Amino acid sequence: MSGFFVPHDLKAPLKGAASGPLAGLTAAVKDLYAIAGEKTGAGNPDWLAQAPTATRHAAAVDKLLAAGASIIGKTITDEFFYSVAGMNAHYGTPANLRAPGRIPGGSSSGSAAATAAGCCDFALGSDTGGSVRVPASFCGLYGIRTTHGRIDTSGAMDMAPSFDTVGWFASSAGLFRSVGQVLLDKPGVSAPIANLLVPDDAFAEADQPVAALLRDALEAMAGALPKPQVMSVAPGGFDKWREAVRIIQAHEIWQVYGRFVEEKKPRFGPGVAERMQIASKVTKAEADAAGDVRGAARAHIRGLVSPGTIMALPTAPCIAPRIDTPQDALESFRVRVMRLTCIAGLGGLPQISVPVGTVSGCPAGLSFIGWAGGDEALLDLAVAVAKHCGLERV
Amino acid sequence: MSGFFVPHDLKAPLKGAASGPLAGLTAAVKDLYAIAGEKTGAGNPDWLAQAPTATRHAAAVDKLLAAGASIIGKTITDEFFYSVAGMNAHYGTPANLRAPGRIPGGSSSGSAAATAAGCCDFALGSDTGGSVRVPASFCGLYGIRTTHGRIDTSGAMDMAPSFDTVGWFASSAGLFRSVGQVLLDKPGVSAPIANLLVPDDAFAEADQPVAALLRDALEAMAGALPKPQVMSVAPGGFDKWREAVRIIQAHEIWQVYGRFVEEKKPRFGPGVAERMQIASKVTKAEADAAGDVRGAARAHIRGLVSPGTIMALPTAPCIAPRIDTPQDALESFRVRVMRLTCIAGLGGLPQISVPVGTVSGCPAGLSFIGWAGGDEALLDLAVAVAKHCGLERV
Repeated sequence: MSGFFVPHDLKAPLKGAASGPLAGLTAAVKDLYAIAGEKTGAGNPDWLAQAPTATRHAAAVDKLLAAGASIIGKTITDEFFYSVAGMNAHYGTPANLRAPGRIPGGSSSGSAAATAAGCCDFALGSDTGGSVRVPASFCGLYGIRTTHGRIDTSGAMDMAPSFDTVGWFASSAGLFRSVGQVLLDKPGVSAPIANLLVPDDAFAEADQPVAALLRDALEAMAGALPKPQVMSVAPGGFDKWREAVRIIQAHEIWQVYGRFVEEKKPRFGPGVAERMQIASKVTKAEADAAGDVRGAARAHIRGLVSPGTIMALPTAPCIAPRIDTPQDALESFRVRVMRLTCIAGLGGLPQISVPVGTVSGCPAGLSFIGWAGGDEALLDLAVAVAKHCGLERV
Repeated sequence: MSGFFVPHDLKAPLKGAASGPLAGLTAAVKDLYAIAGEKTGAGNPDWLAQAPTATRHAAAVDKLLAAGASIIGKTITDEFFYSVAGMNAHYGTPANLRAPGRIPGGSSSGSAAATAAGCCDFALGSDTGGSVRVPASFCGLYGIRTTHGRIDTSGAMDMAPSFDTVGWFASSAGLFRSVGQVLLDKPGVSAPIANLLVPDDAFAEADQPVAALLRDALEAMAGALPKPQVMSVAPGGFDKWREAVRIIQAHEIWQVYGRFVEEKKPRFGPGVAERMQIASKVTKAEADAAGDVRGAARAHIRGLVSPGTIMALPTAPCIAPRIDTPQDALESFRVRVMRLTCIAGLGGLPQISVPVGTVSGCPAGLSFIGWAGGDEALLDLAVAVAKHCGLERV
């Protein structure tokens, strides 16, 4: 079996409406979204064992079904969505067919890997600290983290609610945009894209061949983009921001799942127990201090990426690490990734990852961060630049 | 630049209708389909130089535009569609991002490679002797060769008209099917799929790891398929059939392009001049004898794959060869491929290739041949089995 889907998968697909903008298409959904009559598992069998059976679909699932898409299955996620690696010790790590032998990225790993394998037309994930963006980059897919609060998260499990967003994957840009037209709530903030920021400090975080591929892609896309403005996004470096995200995430996940962890003492895969342990120790004072950092960062980032301005940056600093990467190296990898993913996270801003090509045979994504409510502009941009994807670097 | 598109590409995309089943989606088309106001190049600059400017779109292009898809570009093909390798010495060989360093397969190489890279949602190719099926397999895509005569080929250049069919590529099965719902003409022949033939002789043509992957995939898909019936499809071996296809193809292409080749003496890339030279020497008697072989083969194959019966087989015998494969080895490769692709070709039957997984990191497709007019049943089957794709073999 392909191993993208949870053992407690749907008994039968959920049939979408006969007509609608997604009629005839198939979707998979991360095991974080409620499906009526099913338990939502959060990647952990002990959570699953005590989870209530959902009485209604998550709002996003309802919208997909009404638009004509059928839901074919529930996909594997990192436990409690608490990683960007995409590994799951209980259910198996979904195979990254675009970079065999390497991790798919997570936490929306099964959704990304299933889409990359052609199992479904698109898939729902969620993105708190990179959980759509990172697997999109590693699996060679279009992926979006939407503006925080832009899409109704009813029926979606929390990870760290002040960062949690709905996102999705597709192999091609037009379809990627069509899904957005169905899922995005509330009026967006419309503006023509007039400015393109290219932060040198963000590109400097990426491995040289990855940065070179992404810069080549930006150059290939020049006809569809404003003239790039080279700048720095994080005047004090990324680590202060990354650390604030880490602390707030940990604080919030413990608010959500701490009681369960303490009472049920669930079995965790490698690394998760350690992160939960750390989360349990974050003090209110630390969380408040991190909140102050976030407030300042958000004002700074939102000031840069105002309506009409977008920012290009590497989605991840590297191609997907090998599946046998030791745990401590995976922790360093997470730190590196979060330096880049924290920007949109702190800003509450939308970000798309575009699959521009491969480095040593493995996909790498170029990201664009948009202004709050500028999700549609980013989806249109994906379609506009798609033709210039497809670079290859040895 | 990505290098999937011809130098004489569209100045601007052709905008599709505002609504329709493919609204908002993007397509690329092989440089074999007429686009009004453009020349159709057939992969050869000397042909292009003398080609007339089309006054109307090809029928298939019209249908896509009316269904809402926009056409973003014209893709590179093998010269005169006369190979399954996907190389073009004049315009460059489109990069196979799913198997970097390897050929994309052809002749619909640019369409396949662009789809695999996410440049477009789907792409039009054409299949005479494997020109959609082979690149679909090598690029990890869904691809179809339709029943011969099922789709209006007006405005499509000929290769070998008695084999030529319209086909297309997509990364996912629902979208793959949606394109068929727009393109397929004439009523199909509807029947439930009740029998599954698994020809041992066809599987024996494939490299062992490829055959093993495809057999594993069939097993994974068992729940969505009838019980397999092991059998042999070619009682006299494949070479007689393959040779008949080769001779008829050569004879027909010379009828179509012989005068141009003799009068204009076009520059050809490696291998093409040789094949044209061979084509020029096929006699009427040889073609007639090959026609007799075809008649018998067609009756035999159509007798096996009657309405309600499908046949599973390897799309190609191998993963994509390396880009630096010497010319003589590429010729042997073509021979091996044609042993498998000749079956549906001779039968005039529809065939889909499903991207079931990878071998050594490179995609391989599992094919299903359907009955004449059973295109819709194959497209539905693609959707039904999609969830079970995604196998990986080292």
